[in-house]
Amino acid sequence: MPAQPVLYLEDFVVGARYESDRHALSAEQTIAFARTFDPQPFHVDPAAAEHSFFHGLAASGWHTAAITMRLLVESVPVAGGLIGAGVELRWPTPTRPDDVLHVESVVTAIKPSRSKPDRGIVTMENSTLNDAGEERQHTVSHLLVFRRGAA
Amino acid sequence: MPAQPVLYLEDFVVGARYESDRHALSAEQTIAFARTFDPQPFHVDPAAAEHSFFHGLAASGWHTAAITMRLLVESVPVAGGLIGAGVELRWPTPTRPDDVLHVESVVTAIKPSRSKPDRGIVTMENSTLNDAGEERQHTVSHLLVFRRGAA
Repeated sequence: MPAQPVLYLEDFVVGARYESDRHALSAEQTIAFARTFDPQPFHVDPAAAEHSFFHGLAASGWHTAAITMRLLVESVPVAGGLIGAGVELRWPTPTRPDDVLHVESVVTAIKPSRSKPDRGIVTMENSTLNDAGEERQHTVSHLLVFRRGAA
Repeated sequence: MPAQPVLYLEDFVVGARYESDRHALSAEQTIAFARTFDPQPFHVDPAAAEHSFFHGLAASGWHTAAITMRLLVESVPVAGGLIGAGVELRWPTPTRPDDVLHVESVVTAIKPSRSKPDRGIVTMENSTLNDAGEERQHTVSHLLVFRRGAA
């Protein structure tokens, strides 16, 4: 990614797009994450996964979500950091251990706070995609963003 | 947790409640997770965190989400595993490194599929709480659940 200026609330524009770098998954990464946080057979056991709903090893959706966050931190330069006020997630297709993921984001709404004039909520849609263009995760993210000069 | 029978779609009842075991966080865990997935100063640097929006080190919301998943896998015994169709998350208060977390879940809706008679969607609300009763995460989870005898 080229270096980008740091964004305050007044810098955001509906329709602005951001694209992240790429992250290459592996079976080692997906199994290690799942053993710690989501130890279900279709996430940790390749043989059992073949006979599961997913027909093969699938990454935990929470692993996809965590990788997506990493890619967003590096690609959406919000002043003061990315602070989530709320998120809606869905996983249209399972993330696979050989996926190379990136995130494409678009700003869909900007809503200044009525009660706190130094801040507002920026809503983005984030698509986490593999290199074949398959969408692994879709989120609608509501980010807390401050105005320039906020304390 | 006492051993529980494995639940199929027809076993779920609106209003049923599930409570998980407890997970004790630590600064080491929160910083390690954040370094990998959410490397922002307020998640990885205790000194910088003091002067941030969070006024002290806070766990990544995605770490709270991942721990919540682990606690749900152990406390909501869905036949075939926990398969998320979609989730809405919010973080009412920041998770702290000394939190001991557990998850309280309640079934709020059960919706058989119209097109696929062997399955349906069970909606639950999940509160992730520390031992002081502070809610760190609230989710509305839509789980894919199969009927007894489904392929």
